[in-house]
Amino acid sequence: MPAPTAARPPARFDILAIGNAIVDVVAPVPDAFLAAHAMTKGAMALVDTAAADAIYAAMPPGQESSGGSAANTAAVAAMLGARVAYLGKVADDELGAVFRHDITAAGVHFPTPPLSGGAPTARCLIAVTPDGQRTMNTYLGACVSFAEADVDASVVAASEVVYLEGYLFDPPAAQAAFYAAAKAAHEAGRRVALSLSDAFCVGRHRAAFRDLVAGHVDILFANESEITSLYETATFEAAAEAARADTALAVLTRSEHGSVILRGAETVRVAAEPAEVIDTTGAGDAYAAGFLAALTAGRSLPACGRIASIAAAAAISQYGARPMVDLKALTAGVAD
Amino acid sequence: MPAPTAARPPARFDILAIGNAIVDVVAPVPDAFLAAHAMTKGAMALVDTAAADAIYAAMPPGQESSGGSAANTAAVAAMLGARVAYLGKVADDELGAVFRHDITAAGVHFPTPPLSGGAPTARCLIAVTPDGQRTMNTYLGACVSFAEADVDASVVAASEVVYLEGYLFDPPAAQAAFYAAAKAAHEAGRRVALSLSDAFCVGRHRAAFRDLVAGHVDILFANESEITSLYETATFEAAAEAARADTALAVLTRSEHGSVILRGAETVRVAAEPAEVIDTTGAGDAYAAGFLAALTAGRSLPACGRIASIAAAAAISQYGARPMVDLKALTAGVAD
Repeated sequence: MPAPTAARPPARFDILAIGNAIVDVVAPVPDAFLAAHAMTKGAMALVDTAAADAIYAAMPPGQESSGGSAANTAAVAAMLGARVAYLGKVADDELGAVFRHDITAAGVHFPTPPLSGGAPTARCLIAVTPDGQRTMNTYLGACVSFAEADVDASVVAASEVVYLEGYLFDPPAAQAAFYAAAKAAHEAGRRVALSLSDAFCVGRHRAAFRDLVAGHVDILFANESEITSLYETATFEAAAEAARADTALAVLTRSEHGSVILRGAETVRVAAEPAEVIDTTGAGDAYAAGFLAALTAGRSLPACGRIASIAAAAAISQYGARPMVDLKALTAGVAD
Repeated sequence: MPAPTAARPPARFDILAIGNAIVDVVAPVPDAFLAAHAMTKGAMALVDTAAADAIYAAMPPGQESSGGSAANTAAVAAMLGARVAYLGKVADDELGAVFRHDITAAGVHFPTPPLSGGAPTARCLIAVTPDGQRTMNTYLGACVSFAEADVDASVVAASEVVYLEGYLFDPPAAQAAFYAAAKAAHEAGRRVALSLSDAFCVGRHRAAFRDLVAGHVDILFANESEITSLYETATFEAAAEAARADTALAVLTRSEHGSVILRGAETVRVAAEPAEVIDTTGAGDAYAAGFLAALTAGRSLPACGRIASIAAAAAISQYGARPMVDLKALTAGVAD
């Protein structure tokens, strides 16, 4: 009798990422801008149309680029050579066309049909302070119509890892899509990865995330504030041990202090890659991309962490979440 | 009897810039991309909808930001503290809203009404090669409807310098707007500045530019290839002397070799500001902005050239034409 895994067909995709499809508007601001608009530095806040319009009107000139946490991860993983698909909802408008161009041009399969006649493509207004920290205000737009029907089970079953962003818990219909994707992945013998996305997002959905991580997630990505918020612990170390107990593989990032990878009794510590910090937007997304691209290519955990750190450093060295450099070349020398 | 200039009311604006209102799409490409698409490195080519769609489909993921040569100059001059207005035509669409936001957020008065029900907002597809050179493909869209009726004579009369981009000669109706603006400026006792924009643009409209420069322009901006194309001379020096004879003030840029300013018998040479070249898009626009902001503030010619060079260096140190740094602070130390 063959082992259970022998029944799985070969994966068509290394990674299927699912998330809110968003166009970013990035602009440099002084610290006083955050105070004037009651923004919490480093956090992501959800805003309605009126608030988005008011914030945009107050923002300095910006640069637009495709964003969305899981979409950034998909694009960066594809740049690194992984076979990647993405599911997320844009509208049938100019910014939706920009989003579709960019993720497709990155080599990502993007089958989700656009929304017609509804809300416009989502946008995230990102205020970047002189310390490189980004503070985000997201208008979800067309993302709120992403639902279970958009999760193509055949694509899920054909993907080695299904990667879900925690932000998907904000638009209510997407939660059902989230669980449907996790269920379909496990039924097909695939792995489910989750990024906690944001400490405030964890705070909004803590009980659901605790249940998810313990029961449905094989690979967990989180930064220090997210993981301590999830487990409500006083220290990073306590949260890390809780994550070790809950998931097969926990990947925890600590900005300039590097990252820690926990798998069973194994602990791998990875130094941060030095970088001049211009804009931290997408650092975590790029880290997850590097990690998953390397993991699905069969690389060692230290190599996964190293490649992830190089991708994150490239993301924070420029404005915008997706590095405009040759990441394959930058990571070519990493040994296992 | 008062001198003629005593009759002029005080200027409301230091600079009125008029040009094609364009959103840029910037992406890094290998040199082979230019060859594959028969593009001439460093040049601006006009493309129709079908060609623009085909080039965009082939381009890697990009970043969008407001562009347009004279609009860049307007935005950068405003960042430097000049009082600036801009005339140019966008459409009533998402990219038009981005353009309007950005130029308004830069502090520029932008009274031109958007085009409704016609072509979309213009875009320029900018392929940036590893040497930092930008090669541009422009779809003019709504710009072709910019016409004489869009030139508000009261704004022209209220502006110390009316700055016109040579690219305005590409959409036919804009040529009439160009002459109308120059005429209104001189009737109001104001100065007319012209940027030659691009050597190929000069080639397309050489006779008209020669007539313009000799008869209607007080301040001429050009780079080495543009000025030698205009006068069809073998050397930069010969072209510079021709420009000296034709205009009251000629400002000629030579990339890393700095710039030369000619006013009557006076010649001022300015060294280039050192910079790491990421993307040369907007270098000339930023130079003109720094120069005109300083000139209208009553600064000396060497200080004008120095401030211009610092603004240009900031533009080429990032992706996108409008520097996302504090230009006022960077130029605060320049002495006359």
